[in-house]
This record gives sequence, C-alpha cells and structure tokens, in this order.
Amino acid sequence: MAERRYAIIGTGAVGGFYGARLARAGLDVHFLLHSDFDHVRRHGLRVESADGDFELPEVQAYADARDLPSADVAVLALKTTQNHLLGQLLPPAVGEDGIVLVLQNGFGIEQQVAEIVAPRCVMGGLCFLCSNKVGPGHIRHLDYGFITLAEFSPAGRPAGITDRMRQIAADFEAAGIKISFAEDLVLARWQKLVWNIPFNGLSVVLDAMIDELMAHPHTRRLAEELMGEVAAAAEACGRTIADDFIQHMLELTSKMKPYRTSMKIDCDMKRPMELEAIFGNALRAAHQAGARCPRIETLYQQLKYIDSRNLAAGRTII
Amino acid sequence: MAERRYAIIGTGAVGGFYGARLARAGLDVHFLLHSDFDHVRRHGLRVESADGDFELPEVQAYADARDLPSADVAVLALKTTQNHLLGQLLPPAVGEDGIVLVLQNGFGIEQQVAEIVAPRCVMGGLCFLCSNKVGPGHIRHLDYGFITLAEFSPAGRPAGITDRMRQIAADFEAAGIKISFAEDLVLARWQKLVWNIPFNGLSVVLDAMIDELMAHPHTRRLAEELMGEVAAAAEACGRTIADDFIQHMLELTSKMKPYRTSMKIDCDMKRPMELEAIFGNALRAAHQAGARCPRIETLYQQLKYIDSRNLAAGRTII
Repeated sequence: MAERRYAIIGTGAVGGFYGARLARAGLDVHFLLHSDFDHVRRHGLRVESADGDFELPEVQAYADARDLPSADVAVLALKTTQNHLLGQLLPPAVGEDGIVLVLQNGFGIEQQVAEIVAPRCVMGGLCFLCSNKVGPGHIRHLDYGFITLAEFSPAGRPAGITDRMRQIAADFEAAGIKISFAEDLVLARWQKLVWNIPFNGLSVVLDAMIDELMAHPHTRRLAEELMGEVAAAAEACGRTIADDFIQHMLELTSKMKPYRTSMKIDCDMKRPMELEAIFGNALRAAHQAGARCPRIETLYQQLKYIDSRNLAAGRTII
Repeated sequence: MAERRYAIIGTGAVGGFYGARLARAGLDVHFLLHSDFDHVRRHGLRVESADGDFELPEVQAYADARDLPSADVAVLALKTTQNHLLGQLLPPAVGEDGIVLVLQNGFGIEQQVAEIVAPRCVMGGLCFLCSNKVGPGHIRHLDYGFITLAEFSPAGRPAGITDRMRQIAADFEAAGIKISFAEDLVLARWQKLVWNIPFNGLSVVLDAMIDELMAHPHTRRLAEELMGEVAAAAEACGRTIADDFIQHMLELTSKMKPYRTSMKIDCDMKRPMELEAIFGNALRAAHQAGARCPRIETLYQQLKYIDSRNLAAGRTII
C-alpha cells in the first residue's frame, strides 16, 4: 500500500500535536486551520513537548477545506462545539475509501460523522493527552499522548480489529505515538467518560485543577461517585465497566501533574464548552436505556448555566 | 405577666434587625456583640429598611455574655458556625424559666441547644428575611421579615401552640413583625430547607444571584429537583411536603428581587459557611431514615470543597 495522506481537520491542541508528530516523521500531512492560518502558513508549527521540543517551519496549511487534497485519513480534531461545520469540512477532505478518524471527545460523535460520510469511512480514536494550544500554531504537550483506535459500527456492536487500524497504528507509531486497539468503540467511549465527566465537569464548576480535586476528600469521593454513575449508565447500555477500572483511573489521576482540563480552558477563555458531546449525549443514551444519573445531571445543569453566562458575557467563537 | 426582657445573642443581619425593631417598640432589649461592640456602644444601631429607616442612638450593648441580665427570651441569632460557643453564651443569658428562641438556619439546631439549656426552654423560630449587615451596627433590611414560631419537643413530635408562643408573638407584632405559628417544628424546618438547600447552595457554587438561577431553565429545574429531594427526605422522616408547597416556593422565589443569599455573602467574605447546619444535619437525618439524596450530596460535597479552599486562603473567623 502506498503511503497514506493525512488531513488534520482542526489544528489545535490535539490535531496540531498529532499532525506535527506525523509530519516530522515524514508523512504527507495537510493541516486545515482557521484563525491561525496566516501565522502557520508563514511560520509553521511549534511544539513544546515532554518528549522533546521541535518546530516545523513549513507545513502544508489550508484555510478552506475545499482546497485540501483528498486524504486517506482525515483526522477530526475540532472541538465538538464546531461540529455543525462537518457537513462542509468532511466531504472534500476524505476520499471514497478514506477514513475519518474521530479524535474528538464525547459520546455518539462517530454516529454524527456517519451521517455525513459513509459509515464504513468512520473510525474512532480516543486520545489520552494533556496538551494545550498556547498561541498561534504553538502547542504545549504536557503529558501522555497515546490513542486507542476502534472501528465504528452503525449498530453499535463491537467491530473487531481491522487491517486499516493496524496501518494507521503503524503511521502513528512511526511518529512515536503509542497506539492500542479496542474491539468495542462504545465501551471505549464510556470508559473515557469515566474520567471526562467528573474531572472536566468539576474543574469548571469548582474552578479547580485536577490535583486540587483529588486532594480534597469530598471532591475525590464525588468524582468516584460520578464515575460510578457513568459505569451504571454504561451497564444499562450493555457495557460493563468494572470497579477495578474506576479505582485504576483514580490512582492514575492522583499521580497526574497539576492540570487544567480542556473544558476548564474553554470556560476560562469564554469559549463554548463541549457539554453536549461529553454530558448531553451520554445522559440521553443513559436515559434511553433506563439509567438514572442524578449526580451527572446536577453537574450538567450547573455547566449549562455557566456556559450560558459565558455566552451572555460575550463569548468568542473560534 | 410583666414585660418580657429580651437578649439578642448575635447582633448581625438577623439579630440586629429583630432586636432593633423590638427595642424601637419600647421593649427591654439587651444586645450581645462581638466585633461591633465598641461601635454600637458609642453609636447604637442603624437599620435601613423597606419598612422605613431608623436609628437607635443608644442601645444596651454587651461584649461578654456574663454581663447580660438574665432574660425571659434569649434570641439566638448567631451564625451556626459559632455554635461551639453556645455552652458559654446561653447559660448566663437565659433565666430558669426563660426561653431560647432559636432563629438560626438549618436542621437539628434546637436539639443542640436543648443539650445546653433545659429542653423546655427551647423554642424554634424560622425567619423569612432578606437582610444583610453592611457595616458595624448597620443593618440593611431588603425584604420580608416574618417569623414562624414552633415549640421544640425532644422526641421530635408536634408540640402544638402554647401561651408563651402567643406572648412572644404579641411582642414581635407590637414591633411590626408578622408572626405565624407551626405545630410541628420538624416539618417547619424541613419546609425551610426546601428553599435554603437549593438557593444557598447553588448561589455559592455557581456564583449567582437568586434571580439569575431562576431565569435559567437548567438551574430552575435543578432547584426544583433539589426541592424534590428535600421533600423525599422529609417524607422518609415522617413529614409530608406536598408538591404544591414546592411550586408555591418557586413562584415566590421567581418574584424575589435580586438577592445574594447569606451563604453566598459568607463565602464572598471568606467566612465559614453554615454547611453542617443546613446540609450536613439534614443529610444525616435523611440517611438515617433511609432516604437517598444524590443531588443534595453533590452540592454538599462541592460546597465543602469551596469552604475548605476559603479556609486555606486565610479565612476570617468572626
């Protein structure tokens, strides 16, 4: 098979980091940008990273999706709050047999993408990455970085491990990004929510860093109870998350460096938060399956209030 | 019966307002003060009120409870966060047949008072009052002011309406304060929590005024759901709060002027919040009766985090 061509749809904390790593490894990577386009076209990308800083003075940068060459793999790394744009952005970016690799946060996003491109073109990718965009074309990678790949199935069934997953994994691993495979995208998405729901939510509502939430016994316990509600919702949807998994996530989290979550950064910047992708979609799935999630609902309602106040205060849409 | 002598234990937003009204009506009122003592001894009390402003240039002010003459009615109006002082303050303030009228917020406080003075000396009073202390000896009364009186019973049973309730009511009504009677203190305390739990809690966690919480559909709904959990807890404790009552409270609240709750003011001033009186005691009673209150618990855990952060930031103990 010839070398795969990559398009990065959304060159921010996530897309900018992975795209720059792939490009540095010699892959053919095309970056779609919006507000940073002029800067990146002239100056390229800059990555500060725990794995070593580097710059790419020249990258293939685009301001308009219609100018992108059709890619084998379109890496979808926009904030989900921009997903109303996918109908314009995805069709030109991905070929007939191309893949949209959904690196976005949240639940049920692959389903939305499969309404725009053919379902067989959709693959999920779950990033475990602490990374922020700190300036135009300037990414600061703090910790982690591995990705779990999983095939999308329109029926929501486990779809196994495919050759194309292995091919994409080979490209990312050539760029120094660790990849694991999951047979069941839905389970993997619920597992990711086990962390994202408590820590994104509480960090915003309580204006707190992760280490502060873990250090205080009441918020540590609340995080664990929220994780338990995510597990109960997953169970109602036919996916089992063992208590061991929750304890393991808490242990990993207690060892994390002081970290401001992506939702907290969005909130602080008065940008829209990914509430529907992370909370709303998960709650709707849980309710449809008959699960009750009062703690998650409480957090969601509080976040909706804060998001709406940010909007009223004159939000910046990026 | 001779004229009753009143002692005001805690001359702040609540005690200062009611005490000044009683004194203005010609009653014999003795004010216990702490930080404001020097100011009030020299300048008296000043009340700005929707019912008419007034000043009392000279009041009977005390810095030490041991100097108080024994009162017929000791009006307990400290913040509950100061209740570790009650063992020192109450015995000198109230005579053998005197009454401690507990005007404090929260649940189960009368039981604590009855461990210090004889249970027959304890009466509950539930204030519906929007009032703030805005400076030394300076009270700003914004709205409402009526009090519901109810006798305390150590067994937690309805104790009916007594002559001494009527006598105290006559004094307050002479001072222009509307009084109603409740036969069941425990029910009245649960009813008051129907408002205090959602609005004190959410105003702190979301840094919001009451009208803002009512204007946003998600927080209005969350407030209603929290009220429902208070009602379910009360039910488990053998007290029925009808849904009509909740709807009525929501209607009253939606007509309130922009108001910063007392807990929010305490939080903003980095003072300890009345979390145990309002949340902790109610949750413990609910759990003992087998009720689950996940939304209230979530709010309580969030508030405990905020309270502890305020402490770490160098809290002022008043």
